Amino acid sequence: MDAAAVSLEKTLDDERLRAFLPLIYIAWSDGELSGDEMSSICEIVSGFPGIDGDCQTALGRWLDPLHPPSPEQLERLRQRVSTWVAALESTSRATASELGLVLAAETRSSGEVTTEERQALKRIDEELGPIMPGSGLAAGSVRLAPVERREPRFDVRQMTAILDGRHIGIRSRMRQILARPEFVHLEDPDRDQYRQQVLEWTKLLADEELGSLAYPEPYGAGDMAGFISAFRMLGHHDLSLLTKFGVQFGLFGGAIARLGTDRHHDAYLDRAGSLGLPGCFAMTETAHGSNVRDLETTAVFDPLTDELVIDTPRLLARKDYIGNAARDGRMAVTFARLIVNEIDHGVHGILVPLRDESGHAVPGVTITDIGGKGGLNGVDNGRIEFRKVRVPRINLLDRFATIDETGTYQSEIPSPDRRFFTTIGTLVGGRISVGAAANSVAASALVIAIRYAHRRRQFGDDPLGETLIIDYPLHQQRLITRLAATYAFHFAFDELIAGYTREDGVDQREIEARAAGLKALASWHALDTIQTAREACGGQGYLSINRLTKMYEDADVFTTFEGDNNVLLQLVAKSLLTDFRQQFESMNAIGMLRHLAKRVQERVAETTPITLSTTEREQLIDAVWQIDLLRRRRRHLVESLALRIKKLTDAGTDPYGALIATQTHAAAAATSHVELVLLEAFTGRVTGMHSSREKTTLDRLRALHGLTTIRSNLGWLQEHNTISAATASAVIDLHEKVTSDIAADSLGLVDAFAIPDRVLSAPIAIYETEQEFT
Amino acid sequence: MDAAAVSLEKTLDDERLRAFLPLIYIAWSDGELSGDEMSSICEIVSGFPGIDGDCQTALGRWLDPLHPPSPEQLERLRQRVSTWVAALESTSRATASELGLVLAAETRSSGEVTTEERQALKRIDEELGPIMPGSGLAAGSVRLAPVERREPRFDVRQMTAILDGRHIGIRSRMRQILARPEFVHLEDPDRDQYRQQVLEWTKLLADEELGSLAYPEPYGAGDMAGFISAFRMLGHHDLSLLTKFGVQFGLFGGAIARLGTDRHHDAYLDRAGSLGLPGCFAMTETAHGSNVRDLETTAVFDPLTDELVIDTPRLLARKDYIGNAARDGRMAVTFARLIVNEIDHGVHGILVPLRDESGHAVPGVTITDIGGKGGLNGVDNGRIEFRKVRVPRINLLDRFATIDETGTYQSEIPSPDRRFFTTIGTLVGGRISVGAAANSVAASALVIAIRYAHRRRQFGDDPLGETLIIDYPLHQQRLITRLAATYAFHFAFDELIAGYTREDGVDQREIEARAAGLKALASWHALDTIQTAREACGGQGYLSINRLTKMYEDADVFTTFEGDNNVLLQLVAKSLLTDFRQQFESMNAIGMLRHLAKRVQERVAETTPITLSTTEREQLIDAVWQIDLLRRRRRHLVESLALRIKKLTDAGTDPYGALIATQTHAAAAATSHVELVLLEAFTGRVTGMHSSREKTTLDRLRALHGLTTIRSNLGWLQEHNTISAATASAVIDLHEKVTSDIAADSLGLVDAFAIPDRVLSAPIAIYETEQEFT
Repeated sequence: MDAAAVSLEKTLDDERLRAFLPLIYIAWSDGELSGDEMSSICEIVSGFPGIDGDCQTALGRWLDPLHPPSPEQLERLRQRVSTWVAALESTSRATASELGLVLAAETRSSGEVTTEERQALKRIDEELGPIMPGSGLAAGSVRLAPVERREPRFDVRQMTAILDGRHIGIRSRMRQILARPEFVHLEDPDRDQYRQQVLEWTKLLADEELGSLAYPEPYGAGDMAGFISAFRMLGHHDLSLLTKFGVQFGLFGGAIARLGTDRHHDAYLDRAGSLGLPGCFAMTETAHGSNVRDLETTAVFDPLTDELVIDTPRLLARKDYIGNAARDGRMAVTFARLIVNEIDHGVHGILVPLRDESGHAVPGVTITDIGGKGGLNGVDNGRIEFRKVRVPRINLLDRFATIDETGTYQSEIPSPDRRFFTTIGTLVGGRISVGAAANSVAASALVIAIRYAHRRRQFGDDPLGETLIIDYPLHQQRLITRLAATYAFHFAFDELIAGYTREDGVDQREIEARAAGLKALASWHALDTIQTAREACGGQGYLSINRLTKMYEDADVFTTFEGDNNVLLQLVAKSLLTDFRQQFESMNAIGMLRHLAKRVQERVAETTPITLSTTEREQLIDAVWQIDLLRRRRRHLVESLALRIKKLTDAGTDPYGALIATQTHAAAAATSHVELVLLEAFTGRVTGMHSSREKTTLDRLRALHGLTTIRSNLGWLQEHNTISAATASAVIDLHEKVTSDIAADSLGLVDAFAIPDRVLSAPIAIYETEQEFT
Repeated sequence: MDAAAVSLEKTLDDERLRAFLPLIYIAWSDGELSGDEMSSICEIVSGFPGIDGDCQTALGRWLDPLHPPSPEQLERLRQRVSTWVAALESTSRATASELGLVLAAETRSSGEVTTEERQALKRIDEELGPIMPGSGLAAGSVRLAPVERREPRFDVRQMTAILDGRHIGIRSRMRQILARPEFVHLEDPDRDQYRQQVLEWTKLLADEELGSLAYPEPYGAGDMAGFISAFRMLGHHDLSLLTKFGVQFGLFGGAIARLGTDRHHDAYLDRAGSLGLPGCFAMTETAHGSNVRDLETTAVFDPLTDELVIDTPRLLARKDYIGNAARDGRMAVTFARLIVNEIDHGVHGILVPLRDESGHAVPGVTITDIGGKGGLNGVDNGRIEFRKVRVPRINLLDRFATIDETGTYQSEIPSPDRRFFTTIGTLVGGRISVGAAANSVAASALVIAIRYAHRRRQFGDDPLGETLIIDYPLHQQRLITRLAATYAFHFAFDELIAGYTREDGVDQREIEARAAGLKALASWHALDTIQTAREACGGQGYLSINRLTKMYEDADVFTTFEGDNNVLLQLVAKSLLTDFRQQFESMNAIGMLRHLAKRVQERVAETTPITLSTTEREQLIDAVWQIDLLRRRRRHLVESLALRIKKLTDAGTDPYGALIATQTHAAAAATSHVELVLLEAFTGRVTGMHSSREKTTLDRLRALHGLTTIRSNLGWLQEHNTISAATASAVIDLHEKVTSDIAADSLGLVDAFAIPDRVLSAPIAIYETEQEFT
């Protein structure tokens, strides 16, 4: 240690410098401050009157951008600061300036901090923005091993551009917005603080005109695809914010836009989009969540007063789990059985006020908080009870049905069932959004786990150190297969959103089925991936600060809301059966017989050696071959499902009973459909690209995802003789090889999601060579 | 409504009765109070001076056990009370008396509550114990539909006796203890409150002499099996308590008992068992969790002072995630490299003080809080840094190695590796306990979901109402297969614990492998089951009050601590390979060739029609057939793993590299082993029983679990021609039939776990016909 070094460390004992030590440490260790910023700190500090020459010199030396302290010096500094900080009562995060002030007060013999010091530090905070210790210093921080950078065989920015696709504008903007300091995650907030923060965040997004993005002009930009893109990006940040945003702008405002008419748009859309009128989407009731056709809340038309009377007939019919209700909501799109002249016309959406301007519940409305949830505790979910609440007739959202001035119910859709399904068609956008956002969470989790896998070493006797855990084949199997699936979902949602937002020539029922199926599989994929990522990060993964456990808690209910996943799969299956029936119906008797005969032939064919069997690598990774296999699987599952149902109904079972009896089969058929949709979407995206290293990489990922899907279905595929045992073995071998091959690119593949560090926020995932964490 | 009824309801407007309304409501609606208790309330109330004749009469009528109010009257009362309560600021639970006082103050025109009222209510609390509203009234409560009771085809109490087995004594006692009011779960506590509560609970358990149960006499009862049984029962209650209990009594005290000698026992075991000396088990370091052989903390012997000097060489070598460290621990069994005379003897356990009597860290010890975790936030996990901390030489836990008075290191185990593995053999008990407790959590989750499935109805057009969701085949598949697995794990852990606690003639390595494998699969099974149960309860499952999400959060880390599951599976595989090698080694060259030749023959045999194929029901559910299948699978996976490793090493790969290259194969082999162990244990337990309805039921469950295991491996079994495609189809068909069959008994099967309602605590699972919930 040279003389200069010794004297530098001596300054650690100089009480006068105490208040600046955290700042100095963070300046160097986080690498967050530029040289200019250090100089400017130095300038501010030297300017204040309480400081003398010695002290100034010492500060100048510590903050000289051209002569950084040695690692040993920095470590001494860290030890000093962390020892003091460990003795502090609070372990919550504070700015470097706040820490410095507390430290100075606690460790100085005088116990005093001068006004000049306070002012100097305040000026630094003002000029540079509050500098947060990289999450760690507050409780003693430590350097993690650096992420081992491995260059991928493609250009990361190009890959990001491919992932962003046509939504690159809004996605880039969302990255910038969410990386702003206002959006820094709260550490361990209580429920009230969290709800307040989420409300404020939602307001900030409204101020950016993101809430009204999808509303028709002039209330918004008429850009539904953009709105969903923004929502997907929120999935990387905070899911309570995402949910509040979705409830307010998507469900509440969206229902007004889609179910209402001009007068409702004029009266409410601006305020919905600006959050001037916080609102709810009050559909679910305690006793009816999945089966919303049987909701019990009533809206009885009273011709004497020209009003609708909203009533909760029993406590189990209260609106339940309603987002934005417990605290902020002023109005609710309330779904109730519309009864006119004693005739029940089924479920309709009606605007019902909940609270007055001062936030008190209006007469007849009782709202209770549903209390703690497994996650999403930044959202104020509540229960709503209506006791004969009267609203004007025109509060009926009457795009599909209206009550005219004479008190007569009128609708262009005569069938109550079709009217109902048209009404709740508003849910499709929500399902797409929720499924796509679930996949964003999966992506975030993989960024964290895969970066950590490139810095964590354990076991092994390499002379250079223990083995990097990304190099373990088992670790690769756990993470890389899910990475490929996340890419597959990403592109499948791109395609679905394009279809959903294209008004012309799209089969709406097909879109609804895909939305239901992809939402179900994507939300399960997210939970599975987050949990795998959590475990892959070991104890670090269990620390709140690394956010994986919170991601799981928040995303958990994605499998339930906007449609229970298992119920959704049944919907998908019914849609597939409808296709099948149409196919049948379009055939005459002879055609149908021929069709059945063909199936019997196929069955025979299935018991003899199979066309789809192969052990050739080129074949096994070929998109056409993979898709063919999954198509055969879907076709067989759907056809055999149809036959089973037919047999049951022929034997006298009622259709409902037949559907129930074949539920597990139906779920398998639906799953096989969605698996095919995923692979087709991925293939379609890759096929449409010009040759490039990125295309090669994506095709490799597509091949892996195809193999993963096939591998997970080897039992079925062999049972039905679609492939041979030898093919099954070849699939497994190749699957493991391709996984390891892609693992080499995996760091680049997660970087391509381009999630800003501040948004991701997990210390173990911060990419900088050396990062502080607690 | 008769005249009496009218006048009874009129009393609701009587302000004088206001303070007693919550009490009256709860008395009737929760069904918690007996007739005698109601009379005694009435007596106390009528005794107080502020009450006049009218009021007394009204109270007497409301509280007359022989003339309960009508449902309508009770509902009016509920509406009144809940409307008031909804307007209160706090929604947290309060006793009925507290609610009454607040209500009276808020709703009386005078705004006053008399001293007499306070005293009367206080006397009621004292005489009857505080009466809590059934979790609901505080925010307006509602009656859930009753659980539809379906009588099982066996006796539930008999089944409980079978599940309790030889541990019926301690299990019954634990049920009583945990159902005591002191163990009521806190609602939404902050971290400090929760930690304090957990500490107090742990102390209560110590007072019951449960902590010292496993310690040798005279310090304890020498009953390790009893200790683990108590631990398993804690798994139904609170996992923070379970973890604290495990750390203090199992890990800290257990290490002293197992690694220490008489002087350590004399000095510390009493205080460890009474919680007089809160302690830690400081093994894991930030950089070394799985690979603990390479821990970096040093303990250097200083012959001059006859001391050991404990030091943390770098920050990544701090002891990390250490339970009981952040707040309560006074001493830690610290694992450090023991260095005597400059020779590193590997990792040893040493008693190192952490805090003095007043709770301050001793000099040289820096402890920081690891902060928020994904769960288990009632446990105070911390990081510990040692800076040249000196302890007397005799603080070395020296059962397996000692430093004698002359400063010479001595051990009866010459191999450092064997010494190390003997030392960390203490972990086996922890692994067994954690795995078994994880299965307790799975059982709790299934009780909740299966009871809820017997009360929740959705869809369907039965004239009697919508369909009970337990009657949906898909719902049955989700819950009943996991119920069978939970029984399988229960019996497998019984067997394992019996083997572990039997000192004689047990193959210790086999026990260790089973502990590792069962812990891994049981903890994954728990998470999978809790999540499935959560989803099966829909939105209710996501409410904190129903506890499923908390179970998941708390149990999550069971897959990581006491050994990362994936690492444990590799251990199991290595153990299987060792068996295999021993088998090889015991053969001479000719024997070995014959063995290999036999394998080749088998391979040939496997490509021709198979002996194990069948489509006969009797065969498919036969335990011998099922076990034979799983044995063949294990054998093939282990043998082929051995051959792959041999080929790799023959080709020049180093053994470590060969093990890494075959990791996924090893994990599959290990899993196949544990799956076999599970089925064998289940079968063994059933086979040993006398004929009874319970035996028939359990054999059915065993058959289901066998089919589930086979079904999940159909891909592999067909790939290796162990069964035919026709058998695969038959397995699937039968699996679904058996599942539905058992669903009819499922309520009884979960009741048999006999988890007290207070312990389970989830309102949706409370069995009473009508239960209040928020």
